[in-house]
Amino acid sequence: MYYGEKRVENPIRWGMVGGGRGSQIGYIHRSAALRDFNFDLVAGAFDIDPERGKDFGKQLHVDPDRCYPDYKTMFAEEAKRPDGVQAVSIATPNGMHYEVCKAALEAGLHVVCEKPLCFTSEQADELVKLAEEKHRVVGVTYGYSGHQLIQQARQMIKNGDLGEIRVINMSFAFGGYNFKIEDKVPSAKWRFDPSKAGPSFALGDVGTHPLFIIEAMIPDMKIDNLMCTKRSFVEGRELEDNAFVIMNLKGSENVQAGAQVYCWASSINSGARHYHKIRVVGSKASLEWDDERPNQMLYEIEGEPSRVLERGAGYLTDEARVEDRIGGGHAEGLFEAWSNLYARFAVAMADADKGAYGDFWYPDVKAGAQGIKWIEKCVESADKGSAWVDYE
Amino acid sequence: MYYGEKRVENPIRWGMVGGGRGSQIGYIHRSAALRDFNFDLVAGAFDIDPERGKDFGKQLHVDPDRCYPDYKTMFAEEAKRPDGVQAVSIATPNGMHYEVCKAALEAGLHVVCEKPLCFTSEQADELVKLAEEKHRVVGVTYGYSGHQLIQQARQMIKNGDLGEIRVINMSFAFGGYNFKIEDKVPSAKWRFDPSKAGPSFALGDVGTHPLFIIEAMIPDMKIDNLMCTKRSFVEGRELEDNAFVIMNLKGSENVQAGAQVYCWASSINSGARHYHKIRVVGSKASLEWDDERPNQMLYEIEGEPSRVLERGAGYLTDEARVEDRIGGGHAEGLFEAWSNLYARFAVAMADADKGAYGDFWYPDVKAGAQGIKWIEKCVESADKGSAWVDYE
Amino acid sequence: MYYGEKRVENPIRWGMVGGGRGSQIGYIHRSAALRDFNFDLVAGAFDIDPERGKDFGKQLHVDPDRCYPDYKTMFAEEAKRPDGVQAVSIATPNGMHYEVCKAALEAGLHVVCEKPLCFTSEQADELVKLAEEKHRVVGVTYGYSGHQLIQQARQMIKNGDLGEIRVINMSFAFGGYNFKIEDKVPSAKWRFDPSKAGPSFALGDVGTHPLFIIEAMIPDMKIDNLMCTKRSFVEGRELEDNAFVIMNLKGSENVQAGAQVYCWASSINSGARHYHKIRVVGSKASLEWDDERPNQMLYEIEGEPSRVLERGAGYLTDEARVEDRIGGGHAEGLFEAWSNLYARFAVAMADADKGAYGDFWYPDVKAGAQGIKWIEKCVESADKGSAWVDYE
Amino acid sequence: MYYGEKRVENPIRWGMVGGGRGSQIGYIHRSAALRDFNFDLVAGAFDIDPERGKDFGKQLHVDPDRCYPDYKTMFAEEAKRPDGVQAVSIATPNGMHYEVCKAALEAGLHVVCEKPLCFTSEQADELVKLAEEKHRVVGVTYGYSGHQLIQQARQMIKNGDLGEIRVINMSFAFGGYNFKIEDKVPSAKWRFDPSKAGPSFALGDVGTHPLFIIEAMIPDMKIDNLMCTKRSFVEGRELEDNAFVIMNLKGSENVQAGAQVYCWASSINSGARHYHKIRVVGSKASLEWDDERPNQMLYEIEGEPSRVLERGAGYLTDEARVEDRIGGGHAEGLFEAWSNLYARFAVAMADADKGAYGDFWYPDVKAGAQGIKWIEKCVESADKGSAWVDYE
Repeated sequence: MYYGEKRVENPIRWGMVGGGRGSQIGYIHRSAALRDFNFDLVAGAFDIDPERGKDFGKQLHVDPDRCYPDYKTMFAEEAKRPDGVQAVSIATPNGMHYEVCKAALEAGLHVVCEKPLCFTSEQADELVKLAEEKHRVVGVTYGYSGHQLIQQARQMIKNGDLGEIRVINMSFAFGGYNFKIEDKVPSAKWRFDPSKAGPSFALGDVGTHPLFIIEAMIPDMKIDNLMCTKRSFVEGRELEDNAFVIMNLKGSENVQAGAQVYCWASSINSGARHYHKIRVVGSKASLEWDDERPNQMLYEIEGEPSRVLERGAGYLTDEARVEDRIGGGHAEGLFEAWSNLYARFAVAMADADKGAYGDFWYPDVKAGAQGIKWIEKCVESADKGSAWVDYE
Repeated sequence: MYYGEKRVENPIRWGMVGGGRGSQIGYIHRSAALRDFNFDLVAGAFDIDPERGKDFGKQLHVDPDRCYPDYKTMFAEEAKRPDGVQAVSIATPNGMHYEVCKAALEAGLHVVCEKPLCFTSEQADELVKLAEEKHRVVGVTYGYSGHQLIQQARQMIKNGDLGEIRVINMSFAFGGYNFKIEDKVPSAKWRFDPSKAGPSFALGDVGTHPLFIIEAMIPDMKIDNLMCTKRSFVEGRELEDNAFVIMNLKGSENVQAGAQVYCWASSINSGARHYHKIRVVGSKASLEWDDERPNQMLYEIEGEPSRVLERGAGYLTDEARVEDRIGGGHAEGLFEAWSNLYARFAVAMADADKGAYGDFWYPDVKAGAQGIKWIEKCVESADKGSAWVDYE
Repeated sequence: MYYGEKRVENPIRWGMVGGGRGSQIGYIHRSAALRDFNFDLVAGAFDIDPERGKDFGKQLHVDPDRCYPDYKTMFAEEAKRPDGVQAVSIATPNGMHYEVCKAALEAGLHVVCEKPLCFTSEQADELVKLAEEKHRVVGVTYGYSGHQLIQQARQMIKNGDLGEIRVINMSFAFGGYNFKIEDKVPSAKWRFDPSKAGPSFALGDVGTHPLFIIEAMIPDMKIDNLMCTKRSFVEGRELEDNAFVIMNLKGSENVQAGAQVYCWASSINSGARHYHKIRVVGSKASLEWDDERPNQMLYEIEGEPSRVLERGAGYLTDEARVEDRIGGGHAEGLFEAWSNLYARFAVAMADADKGAYGDFWYPDVKAGAQGIKWIEKCVESADKGSAWVDYE
Repeated sequence: MYYGEKRVENPIRWGMVGGGRGSQIGYIHRSAALRDFNFDLVAGAFDIDPERGKDFGKQLHVDPDRCYPDYKTMFAEEAKRPDGVQAVSIATPNGMHYEVCKAALEAGLHVVCEKPLCFTSEQADELVKLAEEKHRVVGVTYGYSGHQLIQQARQMIKNGDLGEIRVINMSFAFGGYNFKIEDKVPSAKWRFDPSKAGPSFALGDVGTHPLFIIEAMIPDMKIDNLMCTKRSFVEGRELEDNAFVIMNLKGSENVQAGAQVYCWASSINSGARHYHKIRVVGSKASLEWDDERPNQMLYEIEGEPSRVLERGAGYLTDEARVEDRIGGGHAEGLFEAWSNLYARFAVAMADADKGAYGDFWYPDVKAGAQGIKWIEKCVESADKGSAWVDYE
């Protein structure tokens, strides 16, 4: 492998729904998808204002004829072309994810979708089923999971370096919603509107990120039951701005039965930026990682000095190092994490087109569905007075 | 004030029960009590082996005639002397705290006692009552609370610098008991024996430390209800080696009603030393402190750069700075924290002897009783299947 | 501005010399240049093996007819096309920089070149002159200087937030060359061969990076004289693997006369990754930055708590914030720093083509020449027995 | 050994010169000397005001008859007593160190003295000679060197864990004198008066601290030559407030010939507290230590993850662990470092009284003399225009 190696023979013809001018998330999708020539951006329904979308598409070198006013037109028109899009990324407001994702799958397209995939488990199950029937890839952009050191952690855990997992203490607890920001910044308003944001704010918006990271680190992790307590500290919010969840895990290859996960999801952690931290404690050693300093991971073997593992270092596993875009010491950031995911999405899509299924992981439709289910279970627990509820 | 200023006119005549040769805890008691000439060590029942105790006492410049074989003899004999002890510190195994403390109070002595004061609320209530009746001071050595920056936090919270408190995330989760250490180190065995350690290991041994620190920081904090989940990850232990507690707080001057405290107490956090961290989140700003780096405290106002407050700095409050033993920049450690507590114990004792009661705080008999009650409530919750239980 | 906004009306037609398959530096050039559609990669002489170069170009969507066997052919052939390249990036071994840069300028092309631009001041002066005559832009990839917080520092210093600059303590001292790596890794060999690497290893390879960063932070900085001590700790090396330089500065608007810069450049700092740290001390406050954690900068006002400034935060200056590619809290890395530089190169090139010269900075041909001169002066000092030598 | 074990059979009868009420340095001397019953404070000339000194002595349980108006009277009167002082600590202003130290040695007393011992090498040589003739111990309170991890570093270097030492980068660069503090705080004025402070401010006041630490870490270290540049950034100061020194080392067992030491000593490092940092780079690995976080030391082996060594940890050497006053994880501070030194002083004094000389190190009269010589050589270099000067 070499730095930024192209992973697929033929770039995947790719379109975007949403993510137009000024969109932060649209930009990171494009940066990640295009940098290694695994995708070609050939079409888009970038904007609800068609002219603005067309103008923006032009800047991106997209043929104006393939800049569509909406996703339905795009899917219909592209289907008529021999060189029509093969994959589409969805960067719309949350409330549209489900319908666009469903339509894309039905149109035979691979999908990359922002989380949450949808709002209910029924919807999620439907998407899982549809993806399977259509043999299409659905990649979900749990972007932080693409950091190289998450891959490193996954292999160390598999190798038994930590012993059996016993406790996970994690948080994604940012601070900017400590006051009624939605009165000041109108674009924040939908986040507390259940019809647009689904049944949760903090759990869904940030809590699902560390959840997926530990699923990526510990693929055999199974939740047995959970308890959630949530509330809004800022008056007048319909959805929670702060939540805490405790999960008991089932025993499995790398997990001691009864292992516990503590998860703090918050938007009112005054003064914090992400506070997105994960500590995985095993019977022999622990790992600790923080998305704000993603190039370092603490590795603490009981009875030995703490070690700091560095991204890009020669002592990492080959599977982690293959994703170096630059040598160790140099800082990588979130764009590289997304790029790693998009590279895997491309390979998965190319494989799927050939009917092949490579043995590697990425946040897929089931991971997306798992997030939805987890939110539902958390809400169920909270609604029952923070009672313990079985997960299956 | 000046560095290490003596706080009482006449040093308090002081004795020790336990804390003999080789005792780590005995040493820190003496270091803290004697350094500023607020106490004179004049008697002791240092050791269950009287000769060894006498020999040790000699090294400490204690008159051999006042080195006693046991605490009962000491209290009886000292009572006969015009210059008998006025105060006694208890540094015995936990199982003896209650009886020695009670006997000391009954003998009219002030007491400094290791936590836990006792094993049950009934015992604790009895000690509270006895101390009141006898007008005696009982100081409990929640040593970390004596760090200067805890005092600083207390005043910042009182001043409203954080706004209303909403969330506290705290832990004391060390790592050395990740394997069955009690089979290897016999002196660790009693910790998992309920008859010697009380109804809990992790909660009582370490969890009560951050609990008292937040009580010290936020004196008006009142627990409404709580939920505890605890277990032993290492097989064959009668008491938990890991626990998690969530508390809902009542509204009060500095606390928003419904504020939550998350507390992780553990002895199996592989590779960690103390992992004794406290983050207090208010509506405007947060504070974060870690006992392993006690000279720094993070102060994060939402929307501004994070600040690091330094012990001894000129910008701290006068009440915090009065306890400087050396200028800022120089590292203080746990011995200074204990010394601060002992200095306050001395003043409280001298005040009590005069019938005066100064307006300052220290971990007193009620703080000790609160710890016992909290453990009981946690155990009650856990025994009910980690149900929510009312605190009062 | 919005995230990743395109900065030039028409993308600049761009080619590469070197930077073929497997090249780390070629990859970062492309990632930075292409991500925002400010450049189109339309030609290249990627590889000394023309077939391999052509094959690689294909992956990059470059017309095979415009994949050339060498830079001379490329410049000649592209000059014949109406849509020929307007700019070229040079990612060859150091020994070729000068001739390619010169040829490109003579061919009327804008240039982006790796440092060092060349090996001697004579060459550098020639390039400066040539660039002026031809009205062409030469951007030098002092990549770290593109980090947002460097821009922030520049403005804070200009604003007087630090007072007058008195001391700068800086280092770029990595660790991997602590043993004779060139015997093990053949590609490291040229670095110690003066005919290929120029008159210096550590000073030129890493020392010029912090040098340019402080020039970017303090544009009015002027070196008065300097002293350098250098040597090879690993036997058999012709060029130094470790050096130290002290510079006295002249007085200027933001600099106190007699201010001093201490610079440690090393490749034998065992166990360190970059150790690329810069502390700028003013009469009122200091700034401290480390390229391994580029999203944070320490800001320490004397008498106040230390502050940590965060990339992307709302309290940064507008000029710094304009380069956000993602919101604060999210980690950016070296690729974003390079992307910022390439965006400025694009604007400078587009301006130059219009005969306009915008009021903004980037590492230009004079910055490149300054690095060469600095190395020469350091070598001169070292050769004179580490004597002080005047800079002008 | 056990926590705080008494090291000498009979406590040493001890007196103080200076260090009266309000003295920060007097307090740390007493705290360190008395805590382990290795010294008895029996006499003192605490204060230039005899009554105030007597009153203060009373608080310290010193017989009023043995509280003297001045050191001469003390030495004379105590000499007449069979139980007169055996050792004396000098905590006066710098200008008196030499005469009191000399008088004490002539009176046959052991001495503990603040650095600097004196102002000139002639004086230092005289004290060295006198101490030898009288077979008396002179301990110099380079207090930071007593931290446990310094001992650990010494042994790791001796064991060859770092390979041959090549580079040391160190600083003690505090910030409070960035403005003309001596106009505001009269007690700071003497520091810039050569008649009271000697020939240097920053070099002597802070620079000698890291110097002694590396001497303690690398006992076979020998300076070959050095270069110093120094100046006052704040106008009107007679002595330097900022200095930089480069030293070349001779080859020795643990040091590669030509190894270099970089030392920044400053009082104008705005916003910094101590900035007292030492990085020792060997051919295989490096150590890094900072007095503001003295319980941690970075240990970086090239090619492996960085490690953080913790004070009190079980993996430290026995020689380091013997000085534990409390278990690992708990923070020790500067008082423990001083206590470690005083315990060694006591043993050295008791040994000397028996004519025995134990094989252990402490900052002795030669270390004190070395500091004086180093300052002189630095001043010599600076006075010659920052020329290189031979050390021997």
